[in-house]
Amino acid sequence: MDITRLKRTGFPSLVPMAEARDGFLARVQPTTRVEQLPIEESLGRVLARDAVARWPVPSFDKAAMDGYALQASDSFGASVPNPRELLLAGSVAMGEEPAVVVAAGNVVKVSTGSMMPPGADAVIKIEDTELGPDGVIVRLYRQIAPGTNVIQSGEDYANGQVVLDAGRRLRPQDIGALSTLGHPRALLHARPAVAVFATGNELVELDGLQRDADGLVDPRHAGPGKIVDSNRYAIAAFVGIAGGIVVRSALLPDDEGKISVAITDALASCDMVVTTGGTSVGERDFVPAIMGKEYEILCHGIAIKPGSATLLGNARGRPFLGLSGFPVAAEIGMLYFGMPALRKLAGEGVLDPRPRVNARIAEAVAVKGFGITRLLRVALDYDGVTGNSLPNAIPVKLSGAGMQRSMVESDGFVEIPPDIEGYEAGEGVVVTLHPR
Amino acid sequence: MDITRLKRTGFPSLVPMAEARDGFLARVQPTTRVEQLPIEESLGRVLARDAVARWPVPSFDKAAMDGYALQASDSFGASVPNPRELLLAGSVAMGEEPAVVVAAGNVVKVSTGSMMPPGADAVIKIEDTELGPDGVIVRLYRQIAPGTNVIQSGEDYANGQVVLDAGRRLRPQDIGALSTLGHPRALLHARPAVAVFATGNELVELDGLQRDADGLVDPRHAGPGKIVDSNRYAIAAFVGIAGGIVVRSALLPDDEGKISVAITDALASCDMVVTTGGTSVGERDFVPAIMGKEYEILCHGIAIKPGSATLLGNARGRPFLGLSGFPVAAEIGMLYFGMPALRKLAGEGVLDPRPRVNARIAEAVAVKGFGITRLLRVALDYDGVTGNSLPNAIPVKLSGAGMQRSMVESDGFVEIPPDIEGYEAGEGVVVTLHPR
Repeated sequence: MDITRLKRTGFPSLVPMAEARDGFLARVQPTTRVEQLPIEESLGRVLARDAVARWPVPSFDKAAMDGYALQASDSFGASVPNPRELLLAGSVAMGEEPAVVVAAGNVVKVSTGSMMPPGADAVIKIEDTELGPDGVIVRLYRQIAPGTNVIQSGEDYANGQVVLDAGRRLRPQDIGALSTLGHPRALLHARPAVAVFATGNELVELDGLQRDADGLVDPRHAGPGKIVDSNRYAIAAFVGIAGGIVVRSALLPDDEGKISVAITDALASCDMVVTTGGTSVGERDFVPAIMGKEYEILCHGIAIKPGSATLLGNARGRPFLGLSGFPVAAEIGMLYFGMPALRKLAGEGVLDPRPRVNARIAEAVAVKGFGITRLLRVALDYDGVTGNSLPNAIPVKLSGAGMQRSMVESDGFVEIPPDIEGYEAGEGVVVTLHPR
Repeated sequence: MDITRLKRTGFPSLVPMAEARDGFLARVQPTTRVEQLPIEESLGRVLARDAVARWPVPSFDKAAMDGYALQASDSFGASVPNPRELLLAGSVAMGEEPAVVVAAGNVVKVSTGSMMPPGADAVIKIEDTELGPDGVIVRLYRQIAPGTNVIQSGEDYANGQVVLDAGRRLRPQDIGALSTLGHPRALLHARPAVAVFATGNELVELDGLQRDADGLVDPRHAGPGKIVDSNRYAIAAFVGIAGGIVVRSALLPDDEGKISVAITDALASCDMVVTTGGTSVGERDFVPAIMGKEYEILCHGIAIKPGSATLLGNARGRPFLGLSGFPVAAEIGMLYFGMPALRKLAGEGVLDPRPRVNARIAEAVAVKGFGITRLLRVALDYDGVTGNSLPNAIPVKLSGAGMQRSMVESDGFVEIPPDIEGYEAGEGVVVTLHPR
């Protein structure tokens, strides 16, 4: 008997992770749909057009401190033992146009943020002055250079400057900038619409099961051999973080016809289709069969663990993601393939913004065999970390491989490259953080 | 003249950053309000009660692979040259209770996730077997140990195990775990209600200004000496990220009576009050006067830059945050004081979850004077970073200090401690990432 025959039901070969992802993402085209929303509703959304300063910001020179506007040259030589005396010629009211000009020898009182009066080129802080008892003579105890404590017109944004690029996912400070630039509304990419189908005869809807007095479901009520579907809950939340929205969600039996019809229907209204379960190479694994017959398989079998059974495809121009039914493998498929695809669909420039943190592995890690990128779940520990020493990455140890709990108890992944056999305790690693 | 008199209008002393924050947060009490929501609406919300496994999960032993369930001892000695032959006694349908028992010398066909049939203690992968032409004899080409490819009942969560602690902010995988544990709904801390008042005669509502054909506002339409208020937009978004919700938002003039009334009114319905502007020590700075007379000032004047004019207070048991009117200072006040207070109000266990990333400073940085923590805005650059070498932290250089743009162009802060004068190019630093 030929030993290679024994592998007939396994994956013929596994595609390296980066190659699988690049090939999948290369086929994803951003949706062209946009919408305009008030900027207060645009947090976390993706800007569809550059935000440009069409005027200098600020639009006028203003005082950066409470004090006196003056011609800086009038302060030259001033010191505590030898103050200079100038004449108070008026004040600028906050939010008003100055009614007074600063001539040589004069000062004009200003507040932080008030418009600079014509003729002045600097502001001396009130703490560096003293107003005489007559209320007219101002003593300067310090000399200052021209420009001191003045915010120049255009200092924040010059006229014509691109402040926020299209493709940026908006953070709070970016929304603040939009308001400063005079944008009450933002033009945003529409949220990609996603269909999520969990396949498997063993799956039961949590929502349909009997609840006890506390509102909880005993999972055994699902019935012998059956389990509550949890994957769609986690996937919908990952979709939301990546900027998409699940518009279609269903449980499907292990039935090629029914899965095929559900995918066809979803393609009419969705930008992306995600399935869980049935992606391996067994006789109940219908997703690869459907994708191969009706659409296009880009990659089936990826050199990662967990997650090797992930199927990456394209269905009439839309990304198709066939995830494993195992929760950790499904979540990994979302993090490494599904969410970047969604971000690209949503027009975002950065496809995988998960922070990468340098750390030291807290204990030795050994992996068996080469050729597979291992996604080791670790918790980050900053205890005892001082200054800029590195935090510890503590592997999450579980009796069973790929259990859901390892994602719950971890902060991120160490991506163990395919060409190494593990780490010594204390070796430097990079932790890719889970989104939160 | 006594030089110390010159400082009479400045802050008498500045409180170190950690001391200011700890004192402020120590006075914050979590709200006791909770609400129950479907778990699909609980992403980013804070769990109000431990989620405990009340049953073992999974609730039955199941196959981890497609293959044959058997007594492992029946495989002992099997190899490719010397296969062992067993009798196929039936199969377990996915999602069904097994109708067959595995006796010595027998195998039963199983699929990934199907219930283990009684009598079996292991699963041999289909790839390691061959079914004879009669469809009855199964040849095993490998020996396996008991427990191989079996997911044990309780392997993911043992009965009674606390899976998610109260105070955890829910991530996608946590929501997946809740569904597995049989929680269709989650008991969550209510979102803290926040009032945000921007004070200053110079401020104008963006929404009230005339828009051009593109829907944009020319900021000069605000009028001479006036500016559009941008702070409340950014603050509301930071509040949202920290789990709160702005329920009251208004512009107020520099008028002690009006600011006082607004704060009093807000305390009737809000868990926290935030103001911008008017927190320094000038004659137009009414917030400290109101807080000193009517409520309690915990700290006014903090040894950070930008942000030293921040006021931390307590108003009838509720945190009060008086932010500078300068956008960067206001944003820093939110990140270092406001958001941790909100997270504590919302019952979250981790008050400042911003990731901290080790990096190398890309160029020399010099600071003047000791005693102040400087928050240097930096962009992270991973270009040319291989393996686990550190990314570069590039200081965001701007002509003016504390301009809004520095927050827009940066990924995080290097917190330069008060006792150092800066960095040499290439020195190790820690970057605290902006939320996104």
